[in-house]
Amino acid sequence: MVMLEANLDDMTGETLGYVMTRLLDAGAFDVFFTPIQMKKNRPASKLSVLVAPADREKITALILAETSTLGVRYQNWHRTIMKRTFEEVETPYGAVHLKIATYGKTKKVTPEYADCAQLAQKCHIPLTTVYQAALQARKHQ
Amino acid sequence: MVMLEANLDDMTGETLGYVMTRLLDAGAFDVFFTPIQMKKNRPASKLSVLVAPADREKITALILAETSTLGVRYQNWHRTIMKRTFEEVETPYGAVHLKIATYGKTKKVTPEYADCAQLAQKCHIPLTTVYQAALQARKHQ
Amino acid sequence: MVMLEANLDDMTGETLGYVMTRLLDAGAFDVFFTPIQMKKNRPASKLSVLVAPADREKITALILAETSTLGVRYQNWHRTIMKRTFEEVETPYGAVHLKIATYGKTKKVTPEYADCAQLAQKCHIPLTTVYQAALQARKHQ
Amino acid sequence: MVMLEANLDDMTGETLGYVMTRLLDAGAFDVFFTPIQMKKNRPASKLSVLVAPADREKITALILAETSTLGVRYQNWHRTIMKRTFEEVETPYGAVHLKIATYGKTKKVTPEYADCAQLAQKCHIPLTTVYQAALQARKHQ
Amino acid sequence: MVMLEANLDDMTGETLGYVMTRLLDAGAFDVFFTPIQMKKNRPASKLSVLVAPADREKITALILAETSTLGVRYQNWHRTIMKRTFEEVETPYGAVHLKIATYGKTKKVTPEYADCAQLAQKCHIPLTTVYQAALQARKHQ
Amino acid sequence: MVMLEANLDDMTGETLGYVMTRLLDAGAFDVFFTPIQMKKNRPASKLSVLVAPADREKITALILAETSTLGVRYQNWHRTIMKRTFEEVETPYGAVHLKIATYGKTKKVTPEYADCAQLAQKCHIPLTTVYQAALQARKHQ
Repeated sequence: MVMLEANLDDMTGETLGYVMTRLLDAGAFDVFFTPIQMKKNRPASKLSVLVAPADREKITALILAETSTLGVRYQNWHRTIMKRTFEEVETPYGAVHLKIATYGKTKKVTPEYADCAQLAQKCHIPLTTVYQAALQARKHQ
Repeated sequence: MVMLEANLDDMTGETLGYVMTRLLDAGAFDVFFTPIQMKKNRPASKLSVLVAPADREKITALILAETSTLGVRYQNWHRTIMKRTFEEVETPYGAVHLKIATYGKTKKVTPEYADCAQLAQKCHIPLTTVYQAALQARKHQ
Repeated sequence: MVMLEANLDDMTGETLGYVMTRLLDAGAFDVFFTPIQMKKNRPASKLSVLVAPADREKITALILAETSTLGVRYQNWHRTIMKRTFEEVETPYGAVHLKIATYGKTKKVTPEYADCAQLAQKCHIPLTTVYQAALQARKHQ
Repeated sequence: MVMLEANLDDMTGETLGYVMTRLLDAGAFDVFFTPIQMKKNRPASKLSVLVAPADREKITALILAETSTLGVRYQNWHRTIMKRTFEEVETPYGAVHLKIATYGKTKKVTPEYADCAQLAQKCHIPLTTVYQAALQARKHQ
Repeated sequence: MVMLEANLDDMTGETLGYVMTRLLDAGAFDVFFTPIQMKKNRPASKLSVLVAPADREKITALILAETSTLGVRYQNWHRTIMKRTFEEVETPYGAVHLKIATYGKTKKVTPEYADCAQLAQKCHIPLTTVYQAALQARKHQ
Repeated sequence: MVMLEANLDDMTGETLGYVMTRLLDAGAFDVFFTPIQMKKNRPASKLSVLVAPADREKITALILAETSTLGVRYQNWHRTIMKRTFEEVETPYGAVHLKIATYGKTKKVTPEYADCAQLAQKCHIPLTTVYQAALQARKHQ
């Protein structure tokens, strides 16, 4: 996995929000901003983008086209990844997908955000109510 | 004391650094930036300016002229302040002013930053060496 | 204008992103997060919501329902506001609305983000190209 | 409730961590740090302390004694608070207290952090496992 | 030295504070959180952990077990380190250890935090008073 | 390009601002601070310095001399860089240099900050007015 970074002190937050969407649409795994403080009393943002090695050049060109930076730095990172499978459970509010991740003895079950958010809005209930219902539904299967 | 604030997501860090200097030159007591996160995935800066009540309108006009905001919010704060006097001590590197602040039983002695920074650069020694020399010089008087 | 605030250390960022959308949909003027550091080594977020006085109770109830906080603090702020009018200009990429804000001798012209973002994506050009075209179109009228 | 604040740019993080503990021991409701950026390129911390009105002077004196600031600003805030009761449930790992908070139609159940953290360490299991067990235990009563 | 990192947007600050303690207990050299901003308007924390190469797999397993992340990225860093020795000095408040670090012509003397914090609380004096007494005691030896 | 980093929790913001200037004067490409949260409830700053490989040892020695850290970590980064040329344009307020950066089909024009800031202060006009005048002057050539 490759990490691309650029320090941005001559660009607005409005445009940065737009760039985040463009980068995710272009296939970046992850995009995040870190608040940093640069020279001459400038509050700034560090843009970090995680991409597949094959996408590095394409995503670099997009960063150079859409942001104010004149250079992009990059580096390879190793990764340790959990195995993932998916299940579906029925809650009182509708169906929710669960992500089941395993690594050695560790097993984690996470309700899918998109499903829960949609049901919460449809049923006019808090998001956490749907989350807890999804986790509980799995235990009773 | 009045606190003026504006959330800025359509302005560059470069321009914000410039604005900080302009506001201090115009008589603001203190100017600081806080990193915030606004809607539509925008990293942004909250500008905070502390001013005397008599300067509120002048500084507000400056913020509206120099930044991208369309409005400035403000509020009064109370303050508890220590009494301050100044002394001068001789260190091996030159003279340094000390700020002596008192409040009830509390007494604090702080070497002036500008004096110490100037001596550190002139004598090619770390800044903290000058600080500690100034504090020690006072104890030996 | 009323500022509502809550410190949140027992809630996920995922849910906070959802809450931001819910609060804006419910009529809040502005919603923003500030990174803070709470006791017991907890990284946390301060939620700040700006609302009209008439909406305070409704938005407070929504914060209590959707977040983990057990209390919401609030305060009134004064505001100095620029007068706003709108114009439309033609750029080579399509029509863009401009916000014209005035206060004393200060006059600011800002292209509407939504218009620019839409044209940038439609014409496959960087967002800043559309911004500059909109500002220039106005000068040539 | 009173909010006390001070901007600190001439104090170490090490000492600030110590001060947080001292202020909580002295009866502050809440203490938190916000990263800010001050003049002359200084990264700094804003100290915020929430106290009962009767404790304002005592806590102010403590801030002036233990930190580098020469002044403390303060302001009153209003609060909307949920009603709270407590219950105890039995989980497979031991007893956990639950906080039950209500406001209008909203009802929130939160396992006590201290109970869960203690059981997680005693039983060598992740903290979230104890949380979910506590929430589930209540539903089955 | 190995740097492990994970971006966390579906975990609470409360649990993150707990995880910091668990990682330090398990032998991590250093653990720190950086506030970041992720997609879908999520305020999040980047967890960074510095470990010896021999501990990488053990600490990775602990991160996967105790946090919500499904993957941990890692990378090697080089280090330039100062030589360290320790001394003990007598202050008016009790004994304090000093860390003496050297690199070329640079020499730094730092009072041990734990010693100073303990004496400050025992003698009911500010922490910085003990620090300065420890530094001064060494000069007079 | 080499990235040097140190986590600093026992140093003041005042001294850090001084160090930023010293490092830039010594030839560092870029220096920036990131707010981080370290153990024992300490708000801290991560110092990041980008240097040429040939300057690594000199800048490392400076960091060890001027800051409180006992070690500096470092790593190599690759870079993708745009080609840069410079032009000068005449605005109604005076001459401004423009940086012209190109990479593939992407071309970016940026007015030099120092020129614009100087003219803005001399002519008593907002900085953004000079920026826009400089960009427009180029289009009309």
